[in-house]
Amino acid sequence: MNVWSRRLAGPRDPLFQAFNASIVEDRFLADAEATASAAYARALARASVLTAAELDLILVGLERVRRRIAFGEDLCRFEDIHSAVELLLTEEIGDAGRKLHTGRSRNEQVVADEKLYLKAEIPKIVAAIGQVRAAAVALAGAHPDAIIPGYTHLQPGQYVLFAHYVLSLLGPLERAQSRLAETLHRLDACPLGSGAIAGSTIPLDRRTLAEDLGFAEPTSNSMDAVSDRTYILDVLYALAVLHLDLGRFAEDFVIFATREFGLIALDDRLATSSSLMPQKKNPDIFELVRASSGAAVGRLIGLMTTLKGLPSTYNKDLQTDKRPLREGIEEAGRVLRVFGAALGFIRPRADGPAAKPDASLLATDLADYLTEKGLPFREAHGVAGAVVAYAESQGKSCDELSLAELQKLYPGFGEDARAVFSVRRSIERKKTSGSTHPDEVRAALNRERE
Amino acid sequence: MNVWSRRLAGPRDPLFQAFNASIVEDRFLADAEATASAAYARALARASVLTAAELDLILVGLERVRRRIAFGEDLCRFEDIHSAVELLLTEEIGDAGRKLHTGRSRNEQVVADEKLYLKAEIPKIVAAIGQVRAAAVALAGAHPDAIIPGYTHLQPGQYVLFAHYVLSLLGPLERAQSRLAETLHRLDACPLGSGAIAGSTIPLDRRTLAEDLGFAEPTSNSMDAVSDRTYILDVLYALAVLHLDLGRFAEDFVIFATREFGLIALDDRLATSSSLMPQKKNPDIFELVRASSGAAVGRLIGLMTTLKGLPSTYNKDLQTDKRPLREGIEEAGRVLRVFGAALGFIRPRADGPAAKPDASLLATDLADYLTEKGLPFREAHGVAGAVVAYAESQGKSCDELSLAELQKLYPGFGEDARAVFSVRRSIERKKTSGSTHPDEVRAALNRERE
Amino acid sequence: MNVWSRRLAGPRDPLFQAFNASIVEDRFLADAEATASAAYARALARASVLTAAELDLILVGLERVRRRIAFGEDLCRFEDIHSAVELLLTEEIGDAGRKLHTGRSRNEQVVADEKLYLKAEIPKIVAAIGQVRAAAVALAGAHPDAIIPGYTHLQPGQYVLFAHYVLSLLGPLERAQSRLAETLHRLDACPLGSGAIAGSTIPLDRRTLAEDLGFAEPTSNSMDAVSDRTYILDVLYALAVLHLDLGRFAEDFVIFATREFGLIALDDRLATSSSLMPQKKNPDIFELVRASSGAAVGRLIGLMTTLKGLPSTYNKDLQTDKRPLREGIEEAGRVLRVFGAALGFIRPRADGPAAKPDASLLATDLADYLTEKGLPFREAHGVAGAVVAYAESQGKSCDELSLAELQKLYPGFGEDARAVFSVRRSIERKKTSGSTHPDEVRAALNRERE
Amino acid sequence: MNVWSRRLAGPRDPLFQAFNASIVEDRFLADAEATASAAYARALARASVLTAAELDLILVGLERVRRRIAFGEDLCRFEDIHSAVELLLTEEIGDAGRKLHTGRSRNEQVVADEKLYLKAEIPKIVAAIGQVRAAAVALAGAHPDAIIPGYTHLQPGQYVLFAHYVLSLLGPLERAQSRLAETLHRLDACPLGSGAIAGSTIPLDRRTLAEDLGFAEPTSNSMDAVSDRTYILDVLYALAVLHLDLGRFAEDFVIFATREFGLIALDDRLATSSSLMPQKKNPDIFELVRASSGAAVGRLIGLMTTLKGLPSTYNKDLQTDKRPLREGIEEAGRVLRVFGAALGFIRPRADGPAAKPDASLLATDLADYLTEKGLPFREAHGVAGAVVAYAESQGKSCDELSLAELQKLYPGFGEDARAVFSVRRSIERKKTSGSTHPDEVRAALNRERE
Repeated sequence: MNVWSRRLAGPRDPLFQAFNASIVEDRFLADAEATASAAYARALARASVLTAAELDLILVGLERVRRRIAFGEDLCRFEDIHSAVELLLTEEIGDAGRKLHTGRSRNEQVVADEKLYLKAEIPKIVAAIGQVRAAAVALAGAHPDAIIPGYTHLQPGQYVLFAHYVLSLLGPLERAQSRLAETLHRLDACPLGSGAIAGSTIPLDRRTLAEDLGFAEPTSNSMDAVSDRTYILDVLYALAVLHLDLGRFAEDFVIFATREFGLIALDDRLATSSSLMPQKKNPDIFELVRASSGAAVGRLIGLMTTLKGLPSTYNKDLQTDKRPLREGIEEAGRVLRVFGAALGFIRPRADGPAAKPDASLLATDLADYLTEKGLPFREAHGVAGAVVAYAESQGKSCDELSLAELQKLYPGFGEDARAVFSVRRSIERKKTSGSTHPDEVRAALNRERE
Repeated sequence: MNVWSRRLAGPRDPLFQAFNASIVEDRFLADAEATASAAYARALARASVLTAAELDLILVGLERVRRRIAFGEDLCRFEDIHSAVELLLTEEIGDAGRKLHTGRSRNEQVVADEKLYLKAEIPKIVAAIGQVRAAAVALAGAHPDAIIPGYTHLQPGQYVLFAHYVLSLLGPLERAQSRLAETLHRLDACPLGSGAIAGSTIPLDRRTLAEDLGFAEPTSNSMDAVSDRTYILDVLYALAVLHLDLGRFAEDFVIFATREFGLIALDDRLATSSSLMPQKKNPDIFELVRASSGAAVGRLIGLMTTLKGLPSTYNKDLQTDKRPLREGIEEAGRVLRVFGAALGFIRPRADGPAAKPDASLLATDLADYLTEKGLPFREAHGVAGAVVAYAESQGKSCDELSLAELQKLYPGFGEDARAVFSVRRSIERKKTSGSTHPDEVRAALNRERE
Repeated sequence: MNVWSRRLAGPRDPLFQAFNASIVEDRFLADAEATASAAYARALARASVLTAAELDLILVGLERVRRRIAFGEDLCRFEDIHSAVELLLTEEIGDAGRKLHTGRSRNEQVVADEKLYLKAEIPKIVAAIGQVRAAAVALAGAHPDAIIPGYTHLQPGQYVLFAHYVLSLLGPLERAQSRLAETLHRLDACPLGSGAIAGSTIPLDRRTLAEDLGFAEPTSNSMDAVSDRTYILDVLYALAVLHLDLGRFAEDFVIFATREFGLIALDDRLATSSSLMPQKKNPDIFELVRASSGAAVGRLIGLMTTLKGLPSTYNKDLQTDKRPLREGIEEAGRVLRVFGAALGFIRPRADGPAAKPDASLLATDLADYLTEKGLPFREAHGVAGAVVAYAESQGKSCDELSLAELQKLYPGFGEDARAVFSVRRSIERKKTSGSTHPDEVRAALNRERE
Repeated sequence: MNVWSRRLAGPRDPLFQAFNASIVEDRFLADAEATASAAYARALARASVLTAAELDLILVGLERVRRRIAFGEDLCRFEDIHSAVELLLTEEIGDAGRKLHTGRSRNEQVVADEKLYLKAEIPKIVAAIGQVRAAAVALAGAHPDAIIPGYTHLQPGQYVLFAHYVLSLLGPLERAQSRLAETLHRLDACPLGSGAIAGSTIPLDRRTLAEDLGFAEPTSNSMDAVSDRTYILDVLYALAVLHLDLGRFAEDFVIFATREFGLIALDDRLATSSSLMPQKKNPDIFELVRASSGAAVGRLIGLMTTLKGLPSTYNKDLQTDKRPLREGIEEAGRVLRVFGAALGFIRPRADGPAAKPDASLLATDLADYLTEKGLPFREAHGVAGAVVAYAESQGKSCDELSLAELQKLYPGFGEDARAVFSVRRSIERKKTSGSTHPDEVRAALNRERE
């Protein structure tokens, strides 16, 4: 069933029809299509194309159609969601339904539908990110005193508060919210009234129509209005980066939860065991979060590839934007829910192998000590490195070196040198804003809680 | 329902369980799983782990399980297809079912299943490509004398036989078949007997097991056997290039079918019209073929991204390989069927605007003429270019220039110069193998028909 | 030459050293490194780590280093730009240079440098986009009355003003500027004072330091500060979409400039000819603009792939972000300059084959006419489609049909029906804001000129 | 300086000329261009287009041109390498040089050059992979008895020989060689004689010409010959997978070299230290190997994006294939050299934290023990899991449980149960081909050495 049958002669080929039809992929836009159609009908009535009675009939009819679809109406006999709603409406209310499409093109409808869908869904994603932020705060707040080594290159560098590490999740999450908010801002223009490419001969008041649908303004060039799909790229990009960032932390958790690192413990419900090796406790949830960036990047690059080199305005190729759009939104929601919940089932281990104090991680503190004694930093750094190398060669930990040994490496070491080797003190000696100092971490927690 | 429940205490969380489960995505492997399990059972029997009676029971049970799944058994209560088949088997035949997993790991099973699936499906894709080749030959063979301009930079360059152009599809299609065949060749090693990572304590005869399943050999390192997923990348890559190549021709057809080029006519069944502009006849089928490269590239890059940076052997991330695998195969099949059928509904137009002879396309022939007269090629090329520019400046076609005019540009033009301006002769003057000369095209057709 | 030599014993291997070194790739950050180092020195002085005299020495020395590098100093003996500047500084001013690194880490320096570079370069890209907007306005304004067919599916749909089409470039360009501006906004936090991961033991006033460098604020978590590279992804994404959008118009121009479409003429300087076919006039510039989206997408996806799965904070992998960053910025600048200039060498052709009026493009107007007569739109659309099909079957243009013929297809056609077939009138009948109506196009031009 | 100047009037614009020129990017093809030109000249002579004297002159001239370029001739005044060689040849030998291009097109030349380049370079890459294989064999062979835990999900699963793990590199490397060899096989057809698109009017013996250049055959369709660039995609794909696979092992080494895992020790020359944290020993080499997959994937996807949607035959967009081609080859060579060398500086640590025997990794052996006692595998697996959980709850290692304790969990345990807990025995109990059994590993080593 299609809406243009008198132009093309001859039988339709079912193979080609099935290939052309987008109805399976665009059913999720049914609600947006009904909403946009109702607003368009009101605009037609304002432009005197519909009578008040026809408008009423159409509005009632659209609600009935919306309900039929919500209750599972089989739409396979239609080509796409636009035809489906229009033809079901005509089934419901007869001739008046046939007037709804006056001066309207599917080229503008699909853009309106997609934008309305995003205006509804993106705030939910932003809120779900907010839930992950709250979960991070709860996790950090529950363990204010736990200390872990901070890693660079996966090598322990300096001690940090576990809470400080956990709060380093906030930056990526805030940026994800910022990207999504901007996406929403940039797409906030209503294409209806653009016609197929040239505009409409009906004197539609596009500003009122845009406002009726909650858009900030109407689009400003009819050809651009039906061409542009970068609002979907913007969303897929923001989501891909979100997945990549969550994946980085998932990678941390997978590593931190190993027997060897043992920095965190995962509750059994985050793990599965093996079908063959009964002792295994696998961090499947975080592996799957990490894996989710693959499909997210694939959706972005897939649509970029499709858009590449298309001539401007509408081309049928654009039809394939629906699936990455819907799946991208759904998958992000799913991963955020799972990741946020999973944060509730992590705890830092005080007893793990990597948690036991290692004086070599305090080498930077030793360099700082020497700098305070007046040694230029580069030399202080060199001496501290030599201390670490010497201790290693002796099979000792740095804090097991005697003062005499230290002084052999650098005579300027004083009685107070060995006081450097306190993990807690190392953390408390950090003085800058945004550092791991307990006061800074507490302040960050409080800022976020507000 | 899972197969490892005694290791992990406490309740399972439905949110996490749903996220972990792959059963929705791996149902398509049911058949392969049953086949591989039957072969594994025979190997266990050969290794005296199963009695002949147990083996019979298992083989009969597996067929029943296979049938239950084929008839739509709801598998949602299972974690994955491996558990599903094993647990259904145990439902069917009791205790003997619990022995099937002896010394076996899901890590090797999933690889075996995916490879068996590909061994069944890739030949179908190769055959579908063969159908497109046949369709190209039929199209070329049906119009042996039609002539079109050959384009570079979308500028008409030299005349070619329509059949020659159509046969330029063969190269990409042959290369696609070659890539897929190699893929199949490279994955032709059976992982069963590799265990989870270390091999099996059961003295399985892996070579016989491999042959039982139609593999050329067993894999040679158990850790590699459960790590590798590049056989899927190979397939996704080969398919992505296939889609890109089909897309180039789809782009040609979209352009050639425009009102302005008018080089080919599309049957109505390849086209749709517009919901607003009744005169439109849109080449939707070819636009969608062109668009299909987006998702194909997305699948490849998505899985590459997922694999990137994974530590070796099995990680849960690998679970996400199923969807791009299945969808890639299915979509390629669909696009090939449609594209092949669509070739049957194209015909060259003798009456289109771009089809009427244009002497400027014979400028190369003019240069050749001068070269034969002894002018070095570079100068001949310059003179021919000047002829085109002069004719343009006079508002004439090159073949409308008088001999006097030609001689003003280069005195060496003789009486015979104007004989150059014959489209058909231009084509027949090509002498090299693989050229557009009618004999060469006929030979190519015949080679392909064999 | 490196800055950490006392820790690791034994000889360095030149193969590995060359592989590790980033100096070839990060030389472009020299200026930013000098600027950031000067600000850091001022912060150290404020924190009483440097005396006023030392500070002066360092500031003077940094300017000398900056100049040496600007004049081509060979830096190959250094590991990276941070070591290079520090070691050159020490060459210039001796011991005081060794104090500059006090409490500082390359992990924070590289982020500061990259962000300073972007703060300098992105406004130039935004301005270059502004130049393209101006060029589009000039092109549109120079041809206010030219009319071209508007295409969807590369099929002519409705007539539009050439200026309206050209102004459809403004939307993509504005969105590109918006994306880049947001990128700049999101990265506007200074990492200095974050140390390697944990913060600094020097009581640096990070807010003043940030302001000294023109940042809005300091970063808020030291671990996030050294981990994050999504500010580069944001830029690469914004640029990739810009290239894709320019590429769509480049595709249009390549097609519109064909002999067959002939909608626009390209000045000879936009074109090249062929080494073999002297009549060719190839639109190379636009083909290369179209091609540029490939590398742009490659840079984005390349860095996404690199970042995927990295554990948090600094990993050496991040070093490979420099090249896509610099090349992305440079290539965008180049393509914008060329594209903007190229717009000045395009003109619409009144005489081209696609420019001659085609009444079938007015079928929508015919449907509108019938709708105004009271026919429901769907039926009006059907009648108009039938008129097109009938005219085609008679080998006529729609406007050559007699009233009698029209009435045979639908009795409601009146005397006024044939007045529909005026191209100019069709354009003037568009009434909506953003449409191709001359008043709307003029208004858009004026808005943009302000 | 270009080779088509008489067709296009007016001054050239330097901005556009610089943008058009590919000479900077295609200089690396100089050698191939000279080689192909010489063969083409011989073919022209065979076809009597050149005299023997002219041929000699050209051959001598080409060698002089080849040398001038090798010695650093500045080529910036030329448009591309094809023009450069032709014009330099004419400088050298005068008029005869102008005849070389007779019947030849840059469209075919560039394909010939790229293919010749690949025919020279790919064998080197294949050989470099062979060196890495040899390095893996040397590493495995040097430590035949070292044992490490084998990991899945980064959780220790079962013990394996270190050598077995190292030899799991061979599979990916062999597959990489196989992919590259196939690439070479698929591109082994010479395009020369195809002309711009239609073939040549010179009666060239294309088979002899192809053989002269070492190609297996001439291409079979002139339009396909100048269109196809998938031979570059094939190479970029093979290299991207190679980088991804090396990256997986680099990830392993980064993790195995951590303080926490301590499974392997890296020689100091593989590591760098930190500018701030003197104790650090960072595995930079392997991080950079891991990172290299980003750019490799970017190159592949970049060229795929560029090719997407191009009309068939030559388009200027294809010019941008040079850079990813050359850089892909060069970078793969560099990474292979570094990775192979780095394998020589790794050794397994017997003293590392993860190396000390952990009886829980023998749980699978316990399950096997019970299976041998006749328990169905699923139940045996459950009992073994319960043993692990019980030991954990008692703060004991599994092998510290008394027989009584074991029997409480399952009465069938016998005296011999505790003999299961031997790491070495666990490895020796593996019986399948390709397993970690010492005999199998030795056999694999021997196979590879041959």
